[in-house]
Amino acid sequence: MEPKTTSNPAQRIRCIVKLGGAAITCKNEFETIHKENVKIVSQQLRQVMLLGSASEKVLGMDWSKRPGESEAPSVNDDDSDQYVHNSEKFVVVHGAGSFGHFQASKSGVHKGGLSQPLVKAGFVATRISVTSLNQEIVRVLAREGIPSIGMSPFSCGWSTCGRNMEVADVSMVMKAIDSGFVPVLHGDAVLDTSQDCTILSGDVIIRYLAAELKPEFVVFLTDVLGVYDRPPTEPDAVLLREIAVHEDGSWSVMDPAVQDASRKVVVTVAAHDTTGGMVTKISEAAMIAKLGIDVYIVKAATEHSIIALSGRLKHHVPEDWKGTIIRFVK
Amino acid sequence: MEPKTTSNPAQRIRCIVKLGGAAITCKNEFETIHKENVKIVSQQLRQVMLLGSASEKVLGMDWSKRPGESEAPSVNDDDSDQYVHNSEKFVVVHGAGSFGHFQASKSGVHKGGLSQPLVKAGFVATRISVTSLNQEIVRVLAREGIPSIGMSPFSCGWSTCGRNMEVADVSMVMKAIDSGFVPVLHGDAVLDTSQDCTILSGDVIIRYLAAELKPEFVVFLTDVLGVYDRPPTEPDAVLLREIAVHEDGSWSVMDPAVQDASRKVVVTVAAHDTTGGMVTKISEAAMIAKLGIDVYIVKAATEHSIIALSGRLKHHVPEDWKGTIIRFVK
Repeated sequence: MEPKTTSNPAQRIRCIVKLGGAAITCKNEFETIHKENVKIVSQQLRQVMLLGSASEKVLGMDWSKRPGESEAPSVNDDDSDQYVHNSEKFVVVHGAGSFGHFQASKSGVHKGGLSQPLVKAGFVATRISVTSLNQEIVRVLAREGIPSIGMSPFSCGWSTCGRNMEVADVSMVMKAIDSGFVPVLHGDAVLDTSQDCTILSGDVIIRYLAAELKPEFVVFLTDVLGVYDRPPTEPDAVLLREIAVHEDGSWSVMDPAVQDASRKVVVTVAAHDTTGGMVTKISEAAMIAKLGIDVYIVKAATEHSIIALSGRLKHHVPEDWKGTIIRFVK
Repeated sequence: MEPKTTSNPAQRIRCIVKLGGAAITCKNEFETIHKENVKIVSQQLRQVMLLGSASEKVLGMDWSKRPGESEAPSVNDDDSDQYVHNSEKFVVVHGAGSFGHFQASKSGVHKGGLSQPLVKAGFVATRISVTSLNQEIVRVLAREGIPSIGMSPFSCGWSTCGRNMEVADVSMVMKAIDSGFVPVLHGDAVLDTSQDCTILSGDVIIRYLAAELKPEFVVFLTDVLGVYDRPPTEPDAVLLREIAVHEDGSWSVMDPAVQDASRKVVVTVAAHDTTGGMVTKISEAAMIAKLGIDVYIVKAATEHSIIALSGRLKHHVPEDWKGTIIRFVK
């Protein structure tokens, strides 16, 4: 019998995962990956994506040289026929964190103006930085046996108009998914029809893909437990467990029940985040939720993130689960 | 006055350059770039692309961390307004050399069959390898001040049918060029509608792009002086200076004039080259020449390659120039 990796085109996309820049990179160290987090995130993704794959039977898919090595790694393909599993359809989108930010802000790529040599150089430099992060993320995922395929929004032909998503043909992303791969996209420098160029953030990509691909749910992996009512560094910050999004796009906190109406949600915007911090995140999440797609914002590489990624929250939210659920409520 | 990097959409593409895998990598060292060659090639490309750019005034466009460094490089943008130049429209396509080959041949990606776990893993592994080479080539070009943009055929949505180029929307490549960038494409693992997947070679990409973009000329940079009548390692191998391509696609050697009709052209196929060696190269080159586009096959990083890249051969071939010219002759 021919071994098969099931890939049913009719099967619904299970999940779009955002790997937040703050969770996968060391924020204050230039172009440095948070290796530990990325490794755990990859292991959790494998667990939820590759149903029925025992961890001792991973066929690693990064066969490239590692730093300090000169030989090809040995590929354990003796019993590759046994690597048979159903694979859930996932899409990964990651932010930039300490990659790309320096290059983008130094040159003002987000403001456009490719006729200025500095902007043009910054565009090239930004793409080099974010694609090198993408390459690393793809490699770590591949080492875990996830069939990850790096896809740059620029190369996909995606562009913006006035910094809003314009042309975005998702057919190649769909084809990659239907062929059994896990596309790994990223925030990127792209062409903009009104201002030459800009930065397309991972969050905007997520929203667009959610509308096009209609996944069962969306998970944002961040570096804090979820959305708080004020900066999480403040002692009395309260984690918002559930936010309801209404028909008109407005949203309200359902859990914890707000006693004091004057206690407004104060959201934190990390200084390092050129593409907007939590404010952007909640608005983007609310727009996704409005499509009837549950959004979970959760701390990466924790016991809470694996629960969110598994999709179990749809049916039951454990008492001790920490994170934020954003849902459409009619 | 606003500084301008001229980018006239109506301007014809000057040249498509193939950086042969054998010229830019160390053939027998796994995933090792031929740094010296790549650097000289990049310098030569800058010289011919960026008209009027003095070498001391290069605005480097790779602002990422170098191995062993932890800080962002200093960006000398004090007088960025002075980096004003006309830029010739170039497209770069590179082969894989010692990248991708191991992964592709180990798994048989070129034969297709994504339902086999080893092929699927090899597809992922091949893409990781060739895109990491692409990333490095883009970085070296960017350091020389060439606004290089990596574009993967897979991400561009290109696919094949029965290993022949099928879907290939070049509009994004054109947009990148018209925005003043130099697209850098590469041989890649791609989806194939009849056999799931295959390897799309750089040479096939070149032919397709030549037909679509109609450049003034095409240059193949290789690791030998040009095309010989027999393997160039043989003592009596003769460099073919000019090959004429005829209406019916056949080709004949014009220079040196063949005295002995029995001395047939014997072409060498490097054992390392899964995508075909010189045979493929001549057939691909002949198909390009048939479009009325001159093709120059020349040794990379030499005094001969800079002459070919400059486009001067169209008007005059110096006596001491070494290389092969392939031209359409009615």
